[in-house]
Amino acid sequence: MRTLFRNARIYTHRDMGAPLRGDEHSAFTVYDPGAFVVREGIIEWIGPDTAGGGIDDDPDTIVDLGGRCVVPGFVDPHTHLCFAATRENEFQMRLAGADYMQIHREGGGIMSSVRSLRAATRETLLKRTLMGLKRSLSFGVTTVEIKTGYGLTTEAELRQLEVIAQAAKQVPQDVVPTFLGAHSIPEEFRDRRDHFVDLVVEEMLPAAADAGIARYCDVFTEEGVFTVAESERILTRARELGMELKAHVDEIVNLGGAAMAARMKCVSAEHLIAADDDGLSEMAEAGTIAVVLPGTSFSIRKPFARARRMIELGVPLALATDCNPGSCYTESIPFIVTLAVMQMGVPLEAALAAVTINAAYAIGMAESTGTLEGGKQADFIVLEGESPAIIPYHAGVNPVEEVYKKGVRLI
Amino acid sequence: MRTLFRNARIYTHRDMGAPLRGDEHSAFTVYDPGAFVVREGIIEWIGPDTAGGGIDDDPDTIVDLGGRCVVPGFVDPHTHLCFAATRENEFQMRLAGADYMQIHREGGGIMSSVRSLRAATRETLLKRTLMGLKRSLSFGVTTVEIKTGYGLTTEAELRQLEVIAQAAKQVPQDVVPTFLGAHSIPEEFRDRRDHFVDLVVEEMLPAAADAGIARYCDVFTEEGVFTVAESERILTRARELGMELKAHVDEIVNLGGAAMAARMKCVSAEHLIAADDDGLSEMAEAGTIAVVLPGTSFSIRKPFARARRMIELGVPLALATDCNPGSCYTESIPFIVTLAVMQMGVPLEAALAAVTINAAYAIGMAESTGTLEGGKQADFIVLEGESPAIIPYHAGVNPVEEVYKKGVRLI
Repeated sequence: MRTLFRNARIYTHRDMGAPLRGDEHSAFTVYDPGAFVVREGIIEWIGPDTAGGGIDDDPDTIVDLGGRCVVPGFVDPHTHLCFAATRENEFQMRLAGADYMQIHREGGGIMSSVRSLRAATRETLLKRTLMGLKRSLSFGVTTVEIKTGYGLTTEAELRQLEVIAQAAKQVPQDVVPTFLGAHSIPEEFRDRRDHFVDLVVEEMLPAAADAGIARYCDVFTEEGVFTVAESERILTRARELGMELKAHVDEIVNLGGAAMAARMKCVSAEHLIAADDDGLSEMAEAGTIAVVLPGTSFSIRKPFARARRMIELGVPLALATDCNPGSCYTESIPFIVTLAVMQMGVPLEAALAAVTINAAYAIGMAESTGTLEGGKQADFIVLEGESPAIIPYHAGVNPVEEVYKKGVRLI
Repeated sequence: MRTLFRNARIYTHRDMGAPLRGDEHSAFTVYDPGAFVVREGIIEWIGPDTAGGGIDDDPDTIVDLGGRCVVPGFVDPHTHLCFAATRENEFQMRLAGADYMQIHREGGGIMSSVRSLRAATRETLLKRTLMGLKRSLSFGVTTVEIKTGYGLTTEAELRQLEVIAQAAKQVPQDVVPTFLGAHSIPEEFRDRRDHFVDLVVEEMLPAAADAGIARYCDVFTEEGVFTVAESERILTRARELGMELKAHVDEIVNLGGAAMAARMKCVSAEHLIAADDDGLSEMAEAGTIAVVLPGTSFSIRKPFARARRMIELGVPLALATDCNPGSCYTESIPFIVTLAVMQMGVPLEAALAAVTINAAYAIGMAESTGTLEGGKQADFIVLEGESPAIIPYHAGVNPVEEVYKKGVRLI
C-alpha cells in the first residue's frame, strides 16, 4: 500500500545527522508544490510535485492536500504532563503578587503536585495524562517527552513511570519517558536532604532502571533544589545504570548548571534563563542541546532565555512547552513558537527547527521523526495559511488543521 | 418555556448603568453554586443555587452545568474582520525587520487590504467574514463590532457595510457595524488628501447614513493618516448625520487624539499606546471608554497601552482583538485577556470587565448583554477550570467549552 500525498507546500529542515546549529537552524527545504509517498507509515520518497521528477505515478491511494502548507509533526521535548491536578489557586496567588520560588518554599509549587499525585488513583492519573496528550495532539504534537517527578518516593515515581508507559500505549503519539526523581526535596526530607539524594541514588534510580521504562534521567539543579554537586552525583549514577542524561539548569539563579550539563555530557540542558556565555559556550563545545521554555517565562513573568545568543554561540536550540500545572500550563507548541518568534526574536525557520528536528534529537527520536525525508515516519501536520508564518501571524489561534502520525490521519 | 441552568460557578460584574471605572472594574459577583432561569432568551432570575433562595422549582427544562465556571459571553468591541485576504507575506516582511508604518507608506498595509477588497466579489467577502465570525464564536465571543475601511470609495464602503449586515443575519452573534471610511488616504488621493476628506464628508458619510446600517463612525487619527483637524471635521459631520462616534487615536504617535476623542464626546477611543496622562484624564472627565488592543502591540512589537494607568485615572477600560489581516490577526478574546493580565498587569477581574460589560458599553450593547443579570440576554460561556483564572493560566489554549447565545447552546 503506497499513498501519494500531493499538492502541498512542504517546509522541512534536513536531518544533517546531528542537531542543527548556527545558520543551519534557518535552512528550510521548500517543495512548492511538493509531494511524498508513504508506505507502511514511512516516507519512501519526497520531492517536487511535477511529472517526471521522480513522483510515483502508480500509487494505491492519492491524497490531494489542496495546496496547503505541510510541516513535520511537532516534537515537544520537555513536559510534565503526567500530573493529578491543576494548580489554578496558586496561579491566582501569583497574579496577586506571590513569587514562584516563594510558593515553592512554602510547600506549594511542585510539592502541591506531589501531594495530589501521591493521593491519586492510577486511573485518575492516567485519565489526566491522556487528556493532556489529546490536547497536545490537537496542536500538532506527534512526539512528546513526559517526565516523572511528582512522586518523589520510589513507589510513587515507579507508578508515575508506569502510568506514562500505559498512556503511551493508548495514544497515537510516540511518548518518551524521563525519570526525574530529583525534581524537588520532598517535605519529609526537608531537614535531611542528603538522605533524599541517597534515596534517589541508591534506591530510586536502580528501581527505575530495572523497570526499563525511562530512557533519560533528569535533575532540577537550582538554588533551593539540588546543588551542582548533588546533581552530578545523581546523573553519574544514572549513566552507570544505562540512562542518558538531561538537566533543568540555570532557570532562576545561575549555579553554573549549563557548564555542569556540558561536563556531564547531557543530551540537553533545559530552561537556561540565567545561563551566561561561558556556560553556553561549554554546551556548544559539548554539543548539548538547549531546550528553551518561553511559555514558562511568560507564565511566571521572568525574562526569556537568550535563544538568539545560543544560536550565535553554536548551541543547538530546541523549544518545548514545559507543560505542567505550576509554572506553565500549556500544551500548545504553536503558542511556544509564537512567543519565541515575537518576543524572543528567534527567526521563524529556527523556531521550526527547534520544535521539530532539534527537539527530536533532544529526546533521541531523530532517527524516526523531526523532518520530512525518505526513511522517516510520515509524521506531519497541515497548517492553515500559506507558510509556517501562519503560526505567529494567526496569534493565539491554533493553526493546525490536520495531523498525521505514521501516515495515518488523526485530526 | 423556562429553562433553569444550575450547578454553575457564576462570575459576573454588575451593570451599574454606566461603564465601570476604577475599583468597579474589579468587583465580581460570584454565585458558587449559582443558577439562572432563562425565558425566551432573556435571564429572568439569577442567584444562588439553593432551595428557598428564590430558585425556580418548576422550570420546563433543567440544565446541570456540572459545577463548571460560567461567565458572560465575550464582547469584542473593535474588529476589522470583514476583509478579503490575509497578509501573511507582509507579516513575513515584518519578521524580517520591516516597520508596520513603513509598509503602510509603501502601499502595503491597509492599502493592500483595500486592493483585495475592491477586487473581491461580494460572495468571497461574505465567506471570509463568516469564517472570522465562526472562529470568533469558538472563543466565546457572542457580540462583535466590525468596521468598514477597506473600501475607501463610496461604492466599496457601502458594499462592505452591506456584507457586514448580510453576515450579521447569518450568524448567531449580535454584530455591530461601524463606518470607517476614514481608515487611510487611498493611493489615488495621495497628492490631494483634502479631496478625500471632502469625499468622506460630502459623499460617503451621507450615503452610509442613508443606508442605515452603521451605528458608529470611526476615524484613524494618526501621523501619516488623518490629522486631528480632519478627524474632527469627519466626526462632526457623522454626528450631524445621527451616528455615534469612535476614534483610533495615539497608536504610534501622540497627536493629542485622546483629548480630541474626549472633546468630540466619542463613545470610545481606541489603541492609545502613546496617549499621555493629560489625554487620558480628559477621557476620564468625558466618560470616553478606552478600547485597548494588546494583540496589536504583541503582533507589531510595540509597547502595550498603559491600561493600569487608565484604570487609576478613572478611564473605563475595554479590551478587543483588533482582528485584522495586518497588524493583528487573531479572533481570540482569551488570548487578549491573557496578554492583558500577564504582560500589562491588568487585574484578572478588570480584564473580564473589559471584555464583557465595558466592551458592551463601548458598542452600545450594554442594555442586552455584558453581564449575567435579570433582564439581559442569556449570552454566556462555560469555561474549563475552576474560575476565570483558567484563561491566562491555560495559556495559549482555548478554555471555552460551551457557548450560549440568548439561552441557545451554539458550541
